[in-house]
Formats: sequence, structure tokens, C-alpha cells
Amino acid sequence: MTTVVPPASPREHLSRESTRHTLRIQNAILSATREHLTGLGFTELLPPIIGPVTDPGGRGSKQVDIDFYGHRYKLMTSAILYKQASLLAFDKIFCIAPNVRLEPLETCNTNRHLAEFHQIDVEISGATREDAMAVAEGIVVNAVRRVIAERSAELAALGRSPEAFTELLEWPFDRMTHADAVANLRGLGLEQSADAEIDWRNEEILSSKASRPFFVTDYPKGSRGFYDRESRTEAGRLRNFDLIAPEGYGELTSGSEREYEYARIVTRMRESGENPAKYGWYLDMVRDGIPGSAGFGIGLERLTRYVAGLTSVWQASAYPKIPGVVSA
Amino acid sequence: MTTVVPPASPREHLSRESTRHTLRIQNAILSATREHLTGLGFTELLPPIIGPVTDPGGRGSKQVDIDFYGHRYKLMTSAILYKQASLLAFDKIFCIAPNVRLEPLETCNTNRHLAEFHQIDVEISGATREDAMAVAEGIVVNAVRRVIAERSAELAALGRSPEAFTELLEWPFDRMTHADAVANLRGLGLEQSADAEIDWRNEEILSSKASRPFFVTDYPKGSRGFYDRESRTEAGRLRNFDLIAPEGYGELTSGSEREYEYARIVTRMRESGENPAKYGWYLDMVRDGIPGSAGFGIGLERLTRYVAGLTSVWQASAYPKIPGVVSA
Repeated sequence: MTTVVPPASPREHLSRESTRHTLRIQNAILSATREHLTGLGFTELLPPIIGPVTDPGGRGSKQVDIDFYGHRYKLMTSAILYKQASLLAFDKIFCIAPNVRLEPLETCNTNRHLAEFHQIDVEISGATREDAMAVAEGIVVNAVRRVIAERSAELAALGRSPEAFTELLEWPFDRMTHADAVANLRGLGLEQSADAEIDWRNEEILSSKASRPFFVTDYPKGSRGFYDRESRTEAGRLRNFDLIAPEGYGELTSGSEREYEYARIVTRMRESGENPAKYGWYLDMVRDGIPGSAGFGIGLERLTRYVAGLTSVWQASAYPKIPGVVSA
Repeated sequence: MTTVVPPASPREHLSRESTRHTLRIQNAILSATREHLTGLGFTELLPPIIGPVTDPGGRGSKQVDIDFYGHRYKLMTSAILYKQASLLAFDKIFCIAPNVRLEPLETCNTNRHLAEFHQIDVEISGATREDAMAVAEGIVVNAVRRVIAERSAELAALGRSPEAFTELLEWPFDRMTHADAVANLRGLGLEQSADAEIDWRNEEILSSKASRPFFVTDYPKGSRGFYDRESRTEAGRLRNFDLIAPEGYGELTSGSEREYEYARIVTRMRESGENPAKYGWYLDMVRDGIPGSAGFGIGLERLTRYVAGLTSVWQASAYPKIPGVVSA
């Protein structure tokens, strides 16, 4: 993939026809998703943007601290803790959640990291990983269908052929385990640890060999947050998944069955170096009982990038925040 | 109005039937608004939540600072600066914008202040104040119609009669100037400065005497931000408006024609004690030219409170942030 020079000003970015086309495509993705999930019985909630605790995150991104009337709060890095809480009100919820993650400076030219971004965040009470994967697949297929039906002129203007989605629309998404992916990469002569997250350059290689999105399941425990449920039969393997876009666009989605039992969550926090004492309201809630669930978050700007065929994810945001770059 | 005790935990709040009813009513308000504005040719945008500069705000609320890779950024207190910028892409835009304002501690029991809330934010290129008022009225009327049509069971369960909206649905909203409102309040034997914002207790009194929402226009210059356009014929009067709910629910919306000329904006910033040097990208953009516009922000939780007939605005949020109170 090539690179594109980030805009020097909001005027330069917002005055471009390509930005307008992209934002219209993003709108079509969002309205298709809202209609689809509402039709499946999901309730949309407005997620918080600040709180005393948030997703500890991973891959070196940093949380943002704020001062809330003398108390240390954080900007949400993901809605995960609140999604689990929301199941106390509704069995199936979703939100379009803004997140802030201070990604490492070296991600500023990966074409796929933004310091501020949105997730289509879904959580389903009593669901399995496979239930959640089916919902994620449905969202992506439905969004692509809508964009082709209603935004074909914008796709054409951006040079994105609807034929890019022929295989996506005709077959279910493939599935491979993390172990399969590791073997695959090693077969290509690449280095990849079996106990860690797939390196993003390796993920891009797997992605570039695919012609439709595919799932990678069963990541090793150390690679993800405490909330991804560990298999009860295969220790160290998580009941989780990523959804990877084809053509080198890389990861779109992470999801999982969730840990929901107090003792297990505390253990997993400790294993991942988190201090349970910091998780006040969340652990209080878990101690009194929450439903088991599965869910996921789809990176909206990443999905838009893939659907619109953009070089970089910042092109899919009206006010892009590139890691380390001061802008509007 | 009475008071309600804030929930001790997310479980207490989210497990209440009344919370579920309220959030479903809020969803109906949002989907009605999205359909209505999209039908009028508006494009929805996802607003930023952080940036180098934001609305300086008023009435004693404080901004939240954050550290963005060593640079001082702020959480959005309103989307106003970005709404003006967005008109470089589309002539009519809206967003459902999350905002954080650290309101003074004494607002914790006003029943109408939250430290984190959402606005239905609208901006229209080339529009007059009257154009914007018509759009705001349309949103409210349309949302009430939708809630009555689709959420009558929830209204009934909350004890809110659809008859509360008979006058709202049958007549246009009344309009009075700020000067009229001051005279009105003084006629009731109350103190109210002609040169300042209407005291919120006074506003509640005006609100409690009304049986449908009404507009107050022409606030004095010192009472609002630099972006509310000053009349070119009557110095010191702003081309702005508030929309006030009846029954004591108070302010729902603030809106205005906007200042858009560089020299006037810099003058207005200085008059209001703002340092123009802090407004980097915004003033750079204004210097190169932006369209004149009018727009407004409707407080979503306040509108939900009024429509659902709730005692306090925190009841209209899934994760309420009450000023000064540490919660989820």
C-alpha cells in the first residue's frame, strides 16, 4: 500500500470531494447497521466518554487521564465495561462509541491507527462466540450491500469497484484459529510467536492474501484483556475472535465471549498486571452477578476505509487525530 | 418539583423498569430526529470528543484539559467550532455530540445539570435565526409525535399523559425577546438583570407558567459566547435564541446566527476575555473564509426528561455523571 499525506488543515480535508464521498459512505454503513441491529431486537445506548475506569487496552496504547472534580477519571478506550453493565437493562445492546487511545508514535504512518475513533459496539446476553461472529458478519455484509445499493456513485468516484465485494456477498466468511494463522505465517518464512498477538505486519500479509473478510479465533491468553473468556477445556486459549478485512486492510473487529464470574475476573486482572482495586464500580457489579455474554467492537473508520477502498484510515474521519500529530 | 435520590450503583439504575422506558423513549427521539433531518437534506457527522480548543462555555462550567502527546487538548464542551468547520463539507449538518462540562458543585441538585451529556447539534449554511428556530421546532414536534405514536406504553408506565403535548402539537411555539422576559419577571416582583443571562431559577418560573415550549430571543451580548452573532442594527443584542420547555422543565436548546468574519470574531473573543492566540486552527480557518450560518444544540437528556416527564435529568442517562459525584 502507498501512503497519502495528511491534510494541512480542516479546510483542505473537508473541501475535498473524496472526503464528502467517504463520509456519505460512512453514513450509509451506520444507518444500515442501526436498522439491521434494531431489526434483530437490539437496543441502542449512548456510551459514556469518561469514567473512573476503562478498558486497560493493549499493544502499547495509552489511556488519557482527566481530573473529574478532584478524582482521577479516564477517557474511554473502549466501551467494554459499560457494555457488560448495560446487559442489566437490555439483553442485546449496541452503541456507536467514541474512543481515545494514545497509540505509540510509530503507528502514525501505519494507515490504520487513529488516536480518536469510533466502534460499532455490540454485546449479547447469554450468547456464544459463534452467535457474536454471526452478528458481526451480518453487520458487515449488510453494510456493504447498502453502500453498493445507495452509494454506488460515491464508490465509483473513489475508484472502488463493487466487484471487490463479490466474494464477501456470496460466501460465509472463512475461519481459522490463531494456531492456524501462526503456522500459515511460519510457512511463509515469517516469525510469529504462538503465545502473542499477531504482529500487525504479519496480519497485513494474511489480509493481503484474502479476497473476503475472515475470522481468526482462539488467541492466546496473554495477548488480550481480562474480559475475553478463557476456554474451560483448553487452558490459555481464549473464546475470542478477530475479523480481518481482505486486500491488506487488516483487522476490523475484535470480539469474545466474556468472563463474568468475580473470582475469574480478579484472577485474569492479576495475570495481566491490572490492579483489581482500581476497578471499583465494575468489580462491585460483577460480585453481585452479571450475565454471561459475548460481543465485539467493529472499528467504524477501519470498516469505512475497507468499504471505500481508502489508502489510510484518517481519510474516514471528518476531524482525524493522527497519533502524535496536532491538528483540529 | 421534587427530587429523586441518585442511584447508588449502575445495577440499581439499569435494573429499574423506569430506566428502560426512558431509554426507549430517548431512542425514539433520536431515530425520529435522524429521519426528520435526513429528510430535510442534512448530513450526519460524528463529532470529535477531544481537540486543541473548544467552546469557552458559560455560567461557571469548567473545561477538562488532557495531555495529547505533550500538547494541551480539551474535551469538547460543545461542537460549535467543528460545526462551523463542517459547513466546508456540507451545507446542512447535524451530529449527536457528547459533551463534558464540569458544572459548579451547586448544580448537583438542580435536576437539570449533568457533567456529561449529549446535544442534537445542527448547523445550516446561509441560514437566519428564524430558519434555525423553525428546524428546532420541527425536531421537537416530530420527536414528540414519534414518542406518542410508538412509545405510548412507556409514557403510560412513567405516568406521563400524552395530553401534556396537546398544545405543543396544535400551535406554533411562542416567541418573546430577552427584554420581554426581563419585564415579565420584574412584573412578578423578581430580580433579573437586563444585561445578563436569565437566572436559572427565573427561567424555571417562566417555564412553569407555560403550557408549550417557547423561544426567548435577543440575549444581551455579555451573556453568551463569541460565536453568537451580534445584531448589525442593534448593538449589544445577539441574533440568538433559547427554546424553553414548559411545566418548569426549563431550557432545552440554545441557538444563534453565527459570527463568521475574522475581525468580528477576534473582537468578540477579546470582549469576552478569550485569548485569540489559543484558537489556532479555528482562527486560521476563519481568516481564510467560512460561510455565515445559524444553528443550535438541543440537550438530548433534557428533551428526554421533558418528554418522559422525569423529575431529574440524570434519569435520562444510562450512566449519569452528576456534577461532583463519583459514580460509574
